Amino acid sequence: MTVLAGGVGGARLAHGVVLAGVRPDVVVNVGDDTRLHGLWISPDLDTVMYTLAGLNDEERGWGLSGETYATLTQLAALGEDTWFTLGDKDLATHLARTARLLGGVPLSEVTAQLAASLGVTARLLPVTDDPVATLLDTPSGRLAFQEYFVRRQHADAVLGITYEGIDAARPAPGVLDTVTGADVLVIAPSNPFLSVLPVLGVPGVREAVETTAARRVAVSPIVGGQAIKGPAAQILETLGHEVSALGVARLYEGLVDVMVVDDADAALRGPIEDLGFEVLVTDTIMGGPAGRERLARELLAVAGHPVP
Amino acid sequence: MTVLAGGVGGARLAHGVVLAGVRPDVVVNVGDDTRLHGLWISPDLDTVMYTLAGLNDEERGWGLSGETYATLTQLAALGEDTWFTLGDKDLATHLARTARLLGGVPLSEVTAQLAASLGVTARLLPVTDDPVATLLDTPSGRLAFQEYFVRRQHADAVLGITYEGIDAARPAPGVLDTVTGADVLVIAPSNPFLSVLPVLGVPGVREAVETTAARRVAVSPIVGGQAIKGPAAQILETLGHEVSALGVARLYEGLVDVMVVDDADAALRGPIEDLGFEVLVTDTIMGGPAGRERLARELLAVAGHPVP
Repeated sequence: MTVLAGGVGGARLAHGVVLAGVRPDVVVNVGDDTRLHGLWISPDLDTVMYTLAGLNDEERGWGLSGETYATLTQLAALGEDTWFTLGDKDLATHLARTARLLGGVPLSEVTAQLAASLGVTARLLPVTDDPVATLLDTPSGRLAFQEYFVRRQHADAVLGITYEGIDAARPAPGVLDTVTGADVLVIAPSNPFLSVLPVLGVPGVREAVETTAARRVAVSPIVGGQAIKGPAAQILETLGHEVSALGVARLYEGLVDVMVVDDADAALRGPIEDLGFEVLVTDTIMGGPAGRERLARELLAVAGHPVP
Repeated sequence: MTVLAGGVGGARLAHGVVLAGVRPDVVVNVGDDTRLHGLWISPDLDTVMYTLAGLNDEERGWGLSGETYATLTQLAALGEDTWFTLGDKDLATHLARTARLLGGVPLSEVTAQLAASLGVTARLLPVTDDPVATLLDTPSGRLAFQEYFVRRQHADAVLGITYEGIDAARPAPGVLDTVTGADVLVIAPSNPFLSVLPVLGVPGVREAVETTAARRVAVSPIVGGQAIKGPAAQILETLGHEVSALGVARLYEGLVDVMVVDDADAALRGPIEDLGFEVLVTDTIMGGPAGRERLARELLAVAGHPVP
């Protein structure tokens, strides 16, 4: 089973798959990667890694649990910008990643090393080792991703999105193989524009998704017209899409066999089926581990994947 | 008053000068600078900066007091080498320095910024903005400075020393001016080979010391045939010098007017005077702030500098 993932939604779903006893490959967005204080920071990769390692801060959804902030506090005292929260333990990830990247190790290999050190058994793959930067056009101008998302708390209307560098990016080793070789391919309930499209946009990935023999399942991140988390609803709206699981389904036409929508959206079954999708209506809200595992088992079942 | 300094000895003496009510310029060795985890680390500069800020760990002599080690512990968990101890607060210094250097700000300016942020009123000057690396030839081969000093605890016999890059290094802005414009120039009781010579070796600095109108005062780091701290005694010996304040004085011929030796070395007054030095015999062991201030006042007095 292969999961295409952004941050929290993808992390929780992948965690559910692991809890269900299946070891997934997780292909992760890097369009939100940023450099701060000279460090290479890959927030989506880290959210997935920490969640799968059981080390993430469940309450916030990102970062490590039990964090301290001695370095960040001192950085502020030294006059550095500290709007991007970096815990002391989290910093070790960015330091190790940065040092290894500077030493010439590609991001995919660094990711595999870090994940192994933290005891992650799933295979974590950045979609590409090349730099891709999701940039947001807003009424205040073009914003870098973390500037938009963290610093300005995704309050700006998104009028357009550019995935800078994506046309020159090559899929990381293993990415195309895991998409074409999977028997189940899951698009996680991640933001379509900020997480999924910058994965699909890396040359070769969309084609692999279109042509794989895998059963392809997507979970809608929009429930009852609202995003479970983050700005997915606003972005759908300002970019002229219907703010619903149906609007999401339209984005995934030709890429997905089964759309999974929440019980709250049962009424959308017909319209989504009319687009040519199979539809699974279920409880898609993953709270704790039990909810994640339950949803993962349902996805495995609908895809006909053996569940241990 | 200008102080040529390495780490602890220079830091304590400069601190004493500040406590005596004089604001010194401190020209600091960078031959011990290192890169670890992708960070630019300047241990001597930081020791002086932290000491002058009143933030240093007095017991160890280096680093910040009240440190925590969450990042280092996690770096170890990620498989990174952690033989070089980096506290969480200390890391902020290295992160800020590295980010600013990467942004094109020279080390001297970064140093001034960081020192100002920490409330240091003395002027801290790296001897050069260019890279200089003190390398030690030992029976185990050539070692980088921190490899020799920290990782291997300066246990290797030093058979030769190279200051890599020093011939191409230019004095940082202000360095030559503060040497030639000082009325008192102090060579701190730092290791002659590991701290002082890589300062004097930057093209132009030795000439400035030779020709300045300042009263030039050096404090011997060797007391009773022993180094106050570190491997100065061993290095003097393996490089064929007398392990005494007299041996140190010989290294400073033509560069210093007044040699300051400890009461324990009163018997060396004659031989050192025979080399053409004035000699001040006093208690050179700086323990706490009171001892530092006392020694600084004696140096100011012997140099005829007004003491507030």
